[in-house]
Amino acid sequence: MIYFTPGPSQLYPTVATHIQSALDEGFCSISHRSRRYESIQQMAEENLRALMNIPDHFHIFFTSSATEIWDRCIENLVNQRSFHFVNGSFSERFYTTALQMGRDAVSLEAPLGKGFHDLHEIHMHEDNELICITHNETSTGVVFDHELISGLRKQYPDALIAVDAVSSVPYGKINFSDIDTLFFSVQKGFGLPAGLGVWICNERCIAKAESRKAAGKFIGTYHSLPSFLKHSPKHQTPSTPNMLAIYLLAHVSGDMLHTGLSQIEHDTEHKARLIYDFIENRDGFSPFVKDLRDRSQTVVVVESAISSKTINEFLKPHEMQIGGGYGPLKEQQFRIANFPAVSTADVERLLAALSQEIR
Amino acid sequence: MIYFTPGPSQLYPTVATHIQSALDEGFCSISHRSRRYESIQQMAEENLRALMNIPDHFHIFFTSSATEIWDRCIENLVNQRSFHFVNGSFSERFYTTALQMGRDAVSLEAPLGKGFHDLHEIHMHEDNELICITHNETSTGVVFDHELISGLRKQYPDALIAVDAVSSVPYGKINFSDIDTLFFSVQKGFGLPAGLGVWICNERCIAKAESRKAAGKFIGTYHSLPSFLKHSPKHQTPSTPNMLAIYLLAHVSGDMLHTGLSQIEHDTEHKARLIYDFIENRDGFSPFVKDLRDRSQTVVVVESAISSKTINEFLKPHEMQIGGGYGPLKEQQFRIANFPAVSTADVERLLAALSQEIR
Repeated sequence: MIYFTPGPSQLYPTVATHIQSALDEGFCSISHRSRRYESIQQMAEENLRALMNIPDHFHIFFTSSATEIWDRCIENLVNQRSFHFVNGSFSERFYTTALQMGRDAVSLEAPLGKGFHDLHEIHMHEDNELICITHNETSTGVVFDHELISGLRKQYPDALIAVDAVSSVPYGKINFSDIDTLFFSVQKGFGLPAGLGVWICNERCIAKAESRKAAGKFIGTYHSLPSFLKHSPKHQTPSTPNMLAIYLLAHVSGDMLHTGLSQIEHDTEHKARLIYDFIENRDGFSPFVKDLRDRSQTVVVVESAISSKTINEFLKPHEMQIGGGYGPLKEQQFRIANFPAVSTADVERLLAALSQEIR
Repeated sequence: MIYFTPGPSQLYPTVATHIQSALDEGFCSISHRSRRYESIQQMAEENLRALMNIPDHFHIFFTSSATEIWDRCIENLVNQRSFHFVNGSFSERFYTTALQMGRDAVSLEAPLGKGFHDLHEIHMHEDNELICITHNETSTGVVFDHELISGLRKQYPDALIAVDAVSSVPYGKINFSDIDTLFFSVQKGFGLPAGLGVWICNERCIAKAESRKAAGKFIGTYHSLPSFLKHSPKHQTPSTPNMLAIYLLAHVSGDMLHTGLSQIEHDTEHKARLIYDFIENRDGFSPFVKDLRDRSQTVVVVESAISSKTINEFLKPHEMQIGGGYGPLKEQQFRIANFPAVSTADVERLLAALSQEIR
């Protein structure tokens, strides 16, 4: 079965081999304080840094999920006020997380399927501390405008900028000089089993957490930024992590590095073009995101006259599966994940199967 | 290599086969909201319930680690005051977690290597809300007195009782009618890769969390008890969990159920007897825990004239490894984990190798 579901998703082709190696090496039984473990965490950090062009002044920390990092961002980086661009279910959940944590969070909402572009239409409180951006809304297939991120950086230099890049990376062309923190989970673009979040933070984030701590504010316990920072020089985590997932991330990001990010980006865009061309030219299907600037390359949301369930019934004999819709419009939509784990040939087979089955 | 390290530890013998099945079935790519996923989570819950004799009025929730559950216990169950029995590094960390979270936590300390027994020597504030017990101190190899738990229950019926059972379960003979919540991580007694915590809670815990919430207190976001409870009737989790670990737990607890808990307990005690007999009768070794009532059956801490590092050098050609000491006395100690993943034959081989190498 090939999974075009947007997370959990198709495993990267080398995952099974790497799991076997981890088992053969007894990696799941060694101490997370051992040199051997440290060398694998270091490899994960270095491969990610090289693959994603993460500057040296950003730290790389490992959590259990991106959902956890929503909490940790608010806990460590916000005294009172955060600002959230909301254009789907996941950006909304980041916003409600901040509200649940007692912050005066403010949201700016775009209609579902639409993005944000005009800096002049955005009005933020002067005392806003954190700008929260969802780079690729997994629910609606809308990508965030990079120029707007640059504009926000210039307009609000004192605010920290957080980017939830869950369903875009390693694709994404994010300019780290425009942002302060970026995070993701590994079961989307990296094609790994779920259970690991990656949190990338610069010194401004660390300083903010430390100033909150110094002021007697609560910044969490074992997963506060100072706690991560205490362990990361040794390439360790504050508590026993999902070691197998870190092992797999180290190796799969190495494999991706071997392929090269520019090749991955090229392939992603090529596959996305095939998918969008197909759905634009097919009766009963159309892209949910109309504005070309807003269209995600990694999660294609399709308006469909046929339910995702029916489509998956058609696809079953072809051993393929697409993702259902998500959010208020889910019954009229399906989603196709276009992550690096699926090849151009896989996409061609999917489109051929859809052509054949749906007339 | 056979790992007698107390966590991460030796994988249960069936783990590799179950991982292969999970990969063959595409389990890591399916939705955590699908019926197929739910059936596996349900299997994990039912097998654990049967194996550990968990009563029906206890819920079973899945987190990322036991470390996380320290936070969640305090967050959900304590307005102001918790009481902690401290006799090693991990019970102390539960205590300091409560302090970090701003609670008026109180600790009662036993000397390292000693347990608690006398109810009359324990004095708790009337308004204490949570009694925190570490069932098996992984750092010192001291087990908590079951009769004392029963005594505390009778003496302080209004307080909730939390049991950190990280390195005892599935062995442990815990009487659930004496406690309100029990938790553990899976990389110890269950012999699984790290990255999953199991949190077992009764209705009193739920009620306490809900009363805290109703009073406007912060009980967390996605991993609050009400949030777990919202998803658990469908055998789902609030966010994408470590699905592979839940799959493995479902199957390994099924394998253990097939063996039978009484057989596992019998084997554990038999292996523990072999280990304690050996170290008591060997020059240069002695059990750290002197009082027989306090001795852990699952983690044997050995006072040793030879460092753990040297012993592991000796053991290398035998493809075996013991655990280093932990905490202030770690240089003079080593630890032998006696979890279900190591067989009687494995223990016999370890002791024969130690006999042969250390004269």
